[in-house]
Amino acid sequence: MPRPLARRVTVLALALAAARPAAAETRLPDDALEQAAVLRDRGLAGSAAYGIVESLTTEVGPRMAGTEADARAVAWARAKFEELGFDRVRVEPVTFPVWHRGHEQARILGDHAQPLLITALGGSVGTGGQPLEAEVVRFDSLDALMAADAASVRGKIAFIDGRMERFRDGRGYGPAVGARSNGATEAARRGARAVLIRSIGTDSDRLPHTGMMRYAEGVTQIPAAALSVPDAEQLTRVLERDRSARVRLDIDAETRGEYTSHNVIGEIVGSERPEEVVLIGGHLDSWDLGTGAVDDATGGGITMAAGKLIASLPERPRRTVRVVAFANEEQGLLGARAYARAHADAIAQHVIGAESDFGAGRIYALRGNVEPEARKALAQIAEVLTPLGIAYEGEGGGPGPDIGPMAARGMAWAQLAQDGTDYFDLHHTANDTLDKVDAEALDQQAAAYAVFAYLAAEAEGDFGSAPKSAGEED
Amino acid sequence: MPRPLARRVTVLALALAAARPAAAETRLPDDALEQAAVLRDRGLAGSAAYGIVESLTTEVGPRMAGTEADARAVAWARAKFEELGFDRVRVEPVTFPVWHRGHEQARILGDHAQPLLITALGGSVGTGGQPLEAEVVRFDSLDALMAADAASVRGKIAFIDGRMERFRDGRGYGPAVGARSNGATEAARRGARAVLIRSIGTDSDRLPHTGMMRYAEGVTQIPAAALSVPDAEQLTRVLERDRSARVRLDIDAETRGEYTSHNVIGEIVGSERPEEVVLIGGHLDSWDLGTGAVDDATGGGITMAAGKLIASLPERPRRTVRVVAFANEEQGLLGARAYARAHADAIAQHVIGAESDFGAGRIYALRGNVEPEARKALAQIAEVLTPLGIAYEGEGGGPGPDIGPMAARGMAWAQLAQDGTDYFDLHHTANDTLDKVDAEALDQQAAAYAVFAYLAAEAEGDFGSAPKSAGEED
Ligand SMILES: [Zn+2]
Ligand SMILES: [Zn+2]
Repeated sequence: MPRPLARRVTVLALALAAARPAAAETRLPDDALEQAAVLRDRGLAGSAAYGIVESLTTEVGPRMAGTEADARAVAWARAKFEELGFDRVRVEPVTFPVWHRGHEQARILGDHAQPLLITALGGSVGTGGQPLEAEVVRFDSLDALMAADAASVRGKIAFIDGRMERFRDGRGYGPAVGARSNGATEAARRGARAVLIRSIGTDSDRLPHTGMMRYAEGVTQIPAAALSVPDAEQLTRVLERDRSARVRLDIDAETRGEYTSHNVIGEIVGSERPEEVVLIGGHLDSWDLGTGAVDDATGGGITMAAGKLIASLPERPRRTVRVVAFANEEQGLLGARAYARAHADAIAQHVIGAESDFGAGRIYALRGNVEPEARKALAQIAEVLTPLGIAYEGEGGGPGPDIGPMAARGMAWAQLAQDGTDYFDLHHTANDTLDKVDAEALDQQAAAYAVFAYLAAEAEGDFGSAPKSAGEED
Repeated sequence: MPRPLARRVTVLALALAAARPAAAETRLPDDALEQAAVLRDRGLAGSAAYGIVESLTTEVGPRMAGTEADARAVAWARAKFEELGFDRVRVEPVTFPVWHRGHEQARILGDHAQPLLITALGGSVGTGGQPLEAEVVRFDSLDALMAADAASVRGKIAFIDGRMERFRDGRGYGPAVGARSNGATEAARRGARAVLIRSIGTDSDRLPHTGMMRYAEGVTQIPAAALSVPDAEQLTRVLERDRSARVRLDIDAETRGEYTSHNVIGEIVGSERPEEVVLIGGHLDSWDLGTGAVDDATGGGITMAAGKLIASLPERPRRTVRVVAFANEEQGLLGARAYARAHADAIAQHVIGAESDFGAGRIYALRGNVEPEARKALAQIAEVLTPLGIAYEGEGGGPGPDIGPMAARGMAWAQLAQDGTDYFDLHHTANDTLDKVDAEALDQQAAAYAVFAYLAAEAEGDFGSAPKSAGEED
């Protein structure tokens, strides 16, 4: 249907208001709010999200950055944006070193001989072409390792057995993940030959959780791997019986060569201010163990489906809705950093951004970091989302990881907070597969992103994006 | 405490009743019923069961028949029976061919290239030292494969994608397991080069279920492996997109050599009729993927703990309570068959038997196959079990697998039916580990087995065991 007369009047008013002082309140036109409600109900009735997730996870499967599947994923995303009716599709290069995973095995030796199920952490070195055997010294946490006497660690495999707690908002991850990121460095500083960590996860399956680690400069690079949660508990029990139990690790892993992948960008081009952009998206890469269904095919599926919903309206919104499938999030936000570098001069034109990268669970809250003049508008967006079970929670939360580098440069952002209660059961494991995804939950989220992106694109006034020096190295 | 006077009078009456006609009703003395209630309450308050399961699964871990861990498990069981205060401990030899598992990998080739997680089925051959690549032909069930035109199967990998249904009593297993047992034979008869089955399981984890398969005489032996449930669904989706998708299998497996393991037998020796035996137990071996916690460390833990409860009474029961940790159940009831052969002349002296081999879930029913004259006694046993949430269901059910060969020869049996709702989520997978076991549920079961075994050992009259020609080949 054509837009009502009221709309055209509003457009006129808006043109007159273009010179309004910066402190004027951001407003959402009534007809845009009405259209947004239509989008919401349409999305909830059935969106393209699940089909997109099914397509990516089936046709490409695992797509670790730098593998041949990375290139297939980029080709897939280009084709999918076209198929969904986006107006413009393009790619931007992202270059990074390539981490390779080979075989990985572990075994307790001696009286209680048995295998342990492990997976190397991303970025880890291997055991040098032959198994490494050593006694194990166990710590309750990274802090406990850091407090330990180096003499107790030297020549051994340091085992960091910290537990991650389960929360809806995933806040157990932050305190736990240091063992993964920095465990090898801290263990090596104390003379350890390798580090094993209890998986950073909330499940109790024999499926270890991978994820990125880093070596500090000047420290010996030792192999780093995660035990599944049951294996960590088993190793602890064996050590209770035999403190001198030895473990054999055989890990083949290395960082070698360079690869150029791409951020893939689809746009619904704005009708009035096409150079102003509402940025949404997810990351296209995944770890290699699963098919990256909840991390993060769902993010792409939700935001691409939101774009398709907006594209199905009779008229384009005023501003451009840009959906980005970011390259190589997993190994350090490399796609997001490349994007931020490439668009450093266009911070103010990125009126607001939001990323979906927290699984398949429903959205329960809208939060945001916007200028005070835009808070009422954000609350109005949340009002449209109320029937989806989404509450407005004002300031707080955080941008998605791939939004981070742009947020650090001054872009306003919102968080459509998902229920992540089960997310860390699957995160970075082989179990991250399509069967864990609920299509109706994706529709709820596609509807929410469509409402958010559409209204942000229609808003009279901005959300406070303004360039500042990047808060992080890029 | 010493037995009350009533008990001694009963013993006298029993001696007089020894010549009673065979059709006399089996009776449970009142004081035995009272003692049984004490056992029940003691067991429920805390038994040795969980500690036994923890000990076996930790100290020995996986213990596939014929591996070095098989011998460690036998030594463990002997020592554990001694430690628990059993009166007599001995072993009986069980000899069988040894199946070896090596590496196992599968991969979809072509446009949708990606790994598939598989595990070889027990008894399978390998791919002959090199990968096997072929197109895949999918069937909904073993029946569908058997109905297929051989031309559609020849030269391909047959993929049997039947679903197992979830029930409390595990009755989904029977209709599903034929694909595992006979899939390779039926596929080979139609010219297939290998067979892949959807795991016989009720979970949706990336952990394939192994289990025994057999080749019929005179049929080409082709490799047989199970896909995890998510992998089976993924392969199905890929085949929907590309019917000529090829899969590469690389499986190293063979049956080679012979091994002698042992049934391990612990006895609480009867005070009056030591040669008459109540037989309970579980199987000591496990598959190699997990630590065999619910299959079947729990069976051993529950029945050993029941024996310990009985041994803690001030007097031994009239008959012997025999707890057997059977060797090599998984590869064809080989310990149970050896036991039945060794004790073929003593069927009548095995007054009744019951095995625990259905996981860690609570017992909800008592059933039995006993002579009509013993049904009232079985119902009385069930009455003592009522406070444990156990109902008497009369005839029906089946003996545990290791009781089967003795039952076929005429031994009376009972079934203490466990809640197996979740059993086939874990069965024969790497996920079968201690963390899945609830200690309180084990106490309930140890209490129930103690009551059952004690009262059967105290019964005046028998349950109908009488030799008949074995119903199955042994
Ligand atoms: Zn992610
Ligand atoms: Zn079993």
